[in-house]
Amino acid sequence: MAAKKMDELVSLCKRRGFIYQSAEIYGGLQGLYDFGPLGVELKNNLKNTWWKSMVYDNDNIEGLDASILTNPSVLKYSGHEDTFSDPMVDCKSCGLRFREDQVPENCKKEDLTEPRQFNLMFKTNVGPIDDGTSYAYLRPETAQQIFTNFKNVYDTTSQSIPFGIAQIGKAFRNEITPRNFIFRVREFEQMELEYFVKPGEDDNAHDTWVQKRIEWWNNQGVPMESIELYDVPTDELAHYSKKTIDIMYKFPHGVEELEGIANRTDFDLGSHSKRQKDLNLSSQVMKNTDSNSKLAVKDEGGDLFVPYVIEPSAGVERGVLAILNESYFEEDLDNGKKRIVLKIKPHLSPIKVAVIPLKKNNEEIVKLAKHVKETIQSLNLGRVIFENTGNIGKSYRKHDEIGTPLCITIDFDSLDKNTVTIRDRDSMEQKIVKIEELNTIIKDKINLN
Amino acid sequence: MAAKKMDELVSLCKRRGFIYQSAEIYGGLQGLYDFGPLGVELKNNLKNTWWKSMVYDNDNIEGLDASILTNPSVLKYSGHEDTFSDPMVDCKSCGLRFREDQVPENCKKEDLTEPRQFNLMFKTNVGPIDDGTSYAYLRPETAQQIFTNFKNVYDTTSQSIPFGIAQIGKAFRNEITPRNFIFRVREFEQMELEYFVKPGEDDNAHDTWVQKRIEWWNNQGVPMESIELYDVPTDELAHYSKKTIDIMYKFPHGVEELEGIANRTDFDLGSHSKRQKDLNLSSQVMKNTDSNSKLAVKDEGGDLFVPYVIEPSAGVERGVLAILNESYFEEDLDNGKKRIVLKIKPHLSPIKVAVIPLKKNNEEIVKLAKHVKETIQSLNLGRVIFENTGNIGKSYRKHDEIGTPLCITIDFDSLDKNTVTIRDRDSMEQKIVKIEELNTIIKDKINLN
Repeated sequence: MAAKKMDELVSLCKRRGFIYQSAEIYGGLQGLYDFGPLGVELKNNLKNTWWKSMVYDNDNIEGLDASILTNPSVLKYSGHEDTFSDPMVDCKSCGLRFREDQVPENCKKEDLTEPRQFNLMFKTNVGPIDDGTSYAYLRPETAQQIFTNFKNVYDTTSQSIPFGIAQIGKAFRNEITPRNFIFRVREFEQMELEYFVKPGEDDNAHDTWVQKRIEWWNNQGVPMESIELYDVPTDELAHYSKKTIDIMYKFPHGVEELEGIANRTDFDLGSHSKRQKDLNLSSQVMKNTDSNSKLAVKDEGGDLFVPYVIEPSAGVERGVLAILNESYFEEDLDNGKKRIVLKIKPHLSPIKVAVIPLKKNNEEIVKLAKHVKETIQSLNLGRVIFENTGNIGKSYRKHDEIGTPLCITIDFDSLDKNTVTIRDRDSMEQKIVKIEELNTIIKDKINLN
Repeated sequence: MAAKKMDELVSLCKRRGFIYQSAEIYGGLQGLYDFGPLGVELKNNLKNTWWKSMVYDNDNIEGLDASILTNPSVLKYSGHEDTFSDPMVDCKSCGLRFREDQVPENCKKEDLTEPRQFNLMFKTNVGPIDDGTSYAYLRPETAQQIFTNFKNVYDTTSQSIPFGIAQIGKAFRNEITPRNFIFRVREFEQMELEYFVKPGEDDNAHDTWVQKRIEWWNNQGVPMESIELYDVPTDELAHYSKKTIDIMYKFPHGVEELEGIANRTDFDLGSHSKRQKDLNLSSQVMKNTDSNSKLAVKDEGGDLFVPYVIEPSAGVERGVLAILNESYFEEDLDNGKKRIVLKIKPHLSPIKVAVIPLKKNNEEIVKLAKHVKETIQSLNLGRVIFENTGNIGKSYRKHDEIGTPLCITIDFDSLDKNTVTIRDRDSMEQKIVKIEELNTIIKDKINLN
């Protein structure tokens, strides 16, 4: 019963303040979106859950937050300058440019030019002189600066191999034809782990991370039934990869990648190292004449080796889209009406609890409602709102649609008997409970997963 | 006793993994830094504290997370295309380019060209055709897309004036001469609130926000003694501002802006509106022929008006620098030795608690230490680490330097008597406590502020 059409999600996202087109008042800019009051909470909750599961729950994973603007040498030696491109054709008839595999049917074959490679990296001039010599790229992935910081992190923590470095941050790709809402966009966020292991232990680590990542998505409300694993065939593998498993999700527009888990071997650390000949690399790398460092560590015997790296790389927007899609339900109610409800996991819900005074103009009720709101907010579980619309039915419908797990109504009994009505989003069950019980009930509900 | 020299902070940041030069292995890129394992936690803690104090603690503040790539129309009508520039001169003798007020002494006056305006915005081509017609800017401030989304947020929430929209995110400025470590950089993060009020209520709201923001910085460990308020004189005010108070902090390199609180009047919402003549604006704005919206709301009588806006705008990196500077102490110990200690507020500390087994190879002790670590981690107070170095003294010194409020040592008594040693960073006092008391002790300590 999850959403079948992208349109339903797009409409809900706009209507309720999850996601807006960027610069909409100026006609937007293709492939760019802004996250509204609910979208930013959902996105932050997803990112925080990932961060905790990586950095806080694993003693051997460290965090990083590197700059977006990237020294061109980083993307030269990573291979992006040469290979991060799509083939593009021009139609001489309509004058438009398309990705070779996305030419619309009304363009005739004989009107198309030979395909040319189009690099997807955004470039910008840096410094006061704009003569093409001083520029930076907007990083096309967060991974590369994890590699360039490998030694910094290794030297300033007490980690030893195997260990990982995790990063969440924006990445940018000048997609020729952004499409499918927030699925393929020009600016997006990645959650990437680079997990460094001894050569020979890479296959095992790769298997383990594939399993862990599937389980993690399950815990975010993306179930096995909606996932397919794609073992990328050798001839489709990226130049750095020995093996890649893509976690494919049944998006409304088709089955596409949600996360990829790649075995990048010693390609990256090797590529960014000086004097590569000393390093006994298994990968074919470009000779590096600019790096000042060997990205290698010593084994027990004191010999240098370059770790292999396993990379689980997930898209935040794609995760948000999958989670919205899975949690979207239209339900027929007993009274013949319908409701839209977002059965999102409570730890991801943008609003955890809505506190609603029965009468918007009753001072005592409003005062108590504010007090209850502040008490629940101080539990530190996420955003709690005080909703003073004076219309309980309308508030319930709104909070069903935006996925608020619990609504709490403050009424006259709250003043006399110290009780409130607590209403569950999924079951629609309403219970009268004592105010002093609220903290426990809410903690139990929201902390699930 | 706080750090007197920037060098001491830079050294600590590099040595302990707070902040690295970006792309260091390729010689870096001026004005860009990467946040290491400790830096990212400190930065996230500061950002989360701000977010909670804005969005969670105020029923009338909503959050937003807009794109970095910005439609040029946004920055045309905001005035940035025309005015966001520095005067620049070339030295005909040395061939270098400088900001007019930063020409080094060895360049002679007669060698300098007339100053020319140099726009500080980064620009990048968007889409497959690079002929200069299709481009976007990297936003120079997060504020503008709050304004362009004003109606979206207003229409999709139950807010009415006065209300605010808060955003945390990256901004980019092509500074001619980045300097003073992370103080003046080319890529940085802002924490900006735009608080919309009725015209006439703006002066009062401005005063209130100045007071609130000073108090907030005090709570982050930046005390009044280190702050000066600068009431920006009329002739120095930005073009949009009626009044601006800068919160100036005594940075190691001098007294400079930490946060600015501006009364931006109806300039921004007015600038981004169509048919401005209907809006009775007080500001002088550029005629807008591209916007499809009036960024105005109705008053009780049904008449349209454009809200005034108060903007508290703080820099994340500047906050980090101020907090590091305030918390850095070198102390003489009774044994004649010295220690460096970062007396950072516990809620901002990168690591909340370090759990240290007395013997790194004792299975039972290590197992119990891991268990204690997991229990404390699950309190959801931030990062807790299991530190298995086998050297308690060295661990204490490290955790003093990185500002960990509490260290917990697991020893043989932990196995027999269920007790641990808990050591306080600031007092260096060590106490033996029962394991079951730990949660309460830690919550009390870390939740302060």
